[in-house]
Order: sequence, then structure tokens, then C-alpha cells
Amino acid sequence: MSDRRIAESRNEPIPAIVLLSGGLDSYTAAAIAKAGGFALNALTIFYGQRHATEVESARAVAKALGVLRHQELTVDLRPIGGSSLTAEIDVPHDRDLAAAGIPSTYVPARNTIFLSLALGWAEVLGAFDIVIGVNALDYSGYPDCRPEFIAAFEATANLATRAGVEGARFHVHTPLITMSKADIIKRGMELKLDYSLTHSCYDPVPPGRPCGTCDSCVLRARGFAQAGVPDPLLR
Amino acid sequence: MSDRRIAESRNEPIPAIVLLSGGLDSYTAAAIAKAGGFALNALTIFYGQRHATEVESARAVAKALGVLRHQELTVDLRPIGGSSLTAEIDVPHDRDLAAAGIPSTYVPARNTIFLSLALGWAEVLGAFDIVIGVNALDYSGYPDCRPEFIAAFEATANLATRAGVEGARFHVHTPLITMSKADIIKRGMELKLDYSLTHSCYDPVPPGRPCGTCDSCVLRARGFAQAGVPDPLLR
Repeated sequence: MSDRRIAESRNEPIPAIVLLSGGLDSYTAAAIAKAGGFALNALTIFYGQRHATEVESARAVAKALGVLRHQELTVDLRPIGGSSLTAEIDVPHDRDLAAAGIPSTYVPARNTIFLSLALGWAEVLGAFDIVIGVNALDYSGYPDCRPEFIAAFEATANLATRAGVEGARFHVHTPLITMSKADIIKRGMELKLDYSLTHSCYDPVPPGRPCGTCDSCVLRARGFAQAGVPDPLLR
Repeated sequence: MSDRRIAESRNEPIPAIVLLSGGLDSYTAAAIAKAGGFALNALTIFYGQRHATEVESARAVAKALGVLRHQELTVDLRPIGGSSLTAEIDVPHDRDLAAAGIPSTYVPARNTIFLSLALGWAEVLGAFDIVIGVNALDYSGYPDCRPEFIAAFEATANLATRAGVEGARFHVHTPLITMSKADIIKRGMELKLDYSLTHSCYDPVPPGRPCGTCDSCVLRARGFAQAGVPDPLLR
């Protein structure tokens, strides 16, 4: 009997790993998982991102969520670069979000790397549920936010691990994947989330104020506008 | 037309990423790839391994191979632990290699993490071939050394990346996967590899001498004995 089924039979919360960036999406995904009965173990990755201030937001969000554990790991991707978030490439501003192509803020293999690290920690903790706040609707077209990528990673995870060989089944939960940004925010409001703790901007203006014009700021602003609530960060 | 096909049509060497640990297997896998016409970009990961001395061997091996680039990345897995290579757990010695189960030297999700990092760098370089020296014959039963894991990762890689979306196809090459350790060593001899540069021991005795009794030392010794050549490390 797997640890998960033992926990279920005892009505104990089921442990899950949640990738927590400090942004609005991962906070909401984590809160949805918590509301669904998972006990949260938050994982935040410092990868040399331009907006590393989001790691401080992740700490505040983890505290607000009351996670069991908050683990930070560092894998500095700046030596390989290839993205405006990790190399000396300008972040695009006022971009046409409907334009074809994947913007320079795409970080090669980022979610594969993040999910791999989450998988390693999950196996050590005996957790078989991984939560990630990817979204394939109001997003920048990143390939590693799509359901087909998530399904492929899940299949890989079950073959990659001792736990998988021994019969456990890892599940990658993507509660936001088909939601609009407005619906994500509305769900967060229902869950009484404090979005003033979050950070979304890719290219913050010192001392950490959102630029207002990168994809991430634009998607956030549009989401709050469509949800009909003010963004507490902009108060 | 992909960069790879352009290179092929020009008879240029095709760039590949090779995961280079400093051990005997990854050195041989890299040399086989080089002999097959690939231009090598070596990636070595410091993950907080007990036998971090292997990273120095990786530098020597990269030099001997004449790689185009040698990139080292750090992702310290000690905070998540769960392995005798990354946590305060004793490495098993004089273990029965035929015994059931996966030993404590298994590092959760290690090859998934390593291949993800290789994938990120590959995409940045415009390389679509990744070489890894996994072996599913003379090995410790690690799940992420099996062909089914490699196939699943390859499928994930093609869905994870911008290059994949744009039509490139990543290939993960495992030239050693069905070879015995003796055959790997014989192939290395044909390729005139200098195995004195390598490091295999999981639990080296200061100042870096192989213990002789961990799985890795035992498999190496058996391989050299069956190949009928002396191990230059033990001269």
C-alpha cells in the first residue's frame, strides 16, 4: 500500500510539492491544492532570473499559505543564458501578445528543470503529487506550459524513479492550465489570497516596482481588469 | 531546414551535448560520439556529490577529448538529500550486486535533472543531440539508466522546447546502454582513451583514492578484469 493511500485511508492530508515562484499563478495553484486537501511542501528555485526579487515574494507567499516546508534550491542558468530573463538580452515591452512566436523571455527547458527538481524532492519526501501553476490560455506561448508537455513529464517521472519502479504513480497537477487570468484571480479572491504579497514583473524598476509593460505585467493587469478587482500591488 | 541538416549537408561536425561526470562510462560515451562525427560540448554537474573529486576528472577528460566547450553547472541537491551520495547516509560496501532493490547510492531524479539541464543548454546552442553514458547491464539498477526512461525523456524534450515546437527533434544517445562494462573498456582501448584520467569511486579515501568496495569500484574492477587489461588508476 503506498504512503499516499495510507494517508487517504487515515484521512490525513496528502503531502504535495508545489513549485512556488512568488507570482500570482503559483500562489493560486498552491491555495487550490491546499483547499483540495493537500499538505504543501513549497519549492522555490533561484535560477539567476532577472526578477530574483520574486524569491522574496515566494517566502512571503509560503508563509501566508502555511506550508509544511519551504525549500529553496539554486541552479544558476545564467552561464547557459538564451533568455532575456537569464542573459543580457532586453525583456520585450509593450509586445503584441497575439503575435506569433515565443518571446525572448522563454527560458529553455525551465519547467523541465523545475519539475525534475520537484520530482527529486517529492521522491525523498514520499510525496507523489506535484503542483505547478502553468497556464496555457493567458500566457506567453511557452511550450512547457502546455498539457501535452505535462503529460509527457508525468510519464517520464514514473519511469525515472525508484518510487515509480516500486509502483507509485506521480501526478503533476495543473489546476490553472485552462483558466483565464481573470478566473484565476477570481478564484484567488474566493480563497482570500493576498496578492499584494506576489511579484509578477519580469523587468522590475528599482526598488522592485513593476514595469507595467512586460508580458507578465500586461497579463496581470488585464486579468485584474477583467476580474473587476484592483491589483493590490498598484494601490 | 534545421541547423543539424544544414551541418550534415555541409559535412560539418554536428554539435552535441555530452554529460561528462569524470567517470569511465561518460568518457567512453563521449569518445564514441566524437568518433561518430559529433562536435562535443561537455556538461558537468556539481550536485553536492560525496565524490566531487570526479569534477576534476571531468575537466581532465574534457581536455583529453578536445571538446569545443566545457560547461560546469551547480545544483546542490544536498538540501533535499535522500541518497548516500548527497546525504549523511553510509555508502554500501561489498554489496551483493545481484541482490534485489535499488541501493542507497540512487539519487532521486538525478538523470532527469541532468538531462533537463543538458536540454536547456542544447537548445541555446542549437544542438539537438544529447549523449549520456547510461548503462543498463553492468549497473546498480538505477531506474533512470533504462531505455524506457530515456525514450520518455526524449518525447518530453520535444514537447518542452521552442525548438521542438518549431520542428526540431532532440535525440538522446546512449551508446553504452546495452554494453557490458568489459565491452565499454575494450571500446575505450580501441579509441585510445586514457582511463587514468577518470574517477569512479563513490566513497573515495583521502586523498581521493578509490575505496575498492563500493558498487562503482566493484563494477569497474570486474570490467577491467573481464576485458583483460589493467586499470591504470591502480598501477
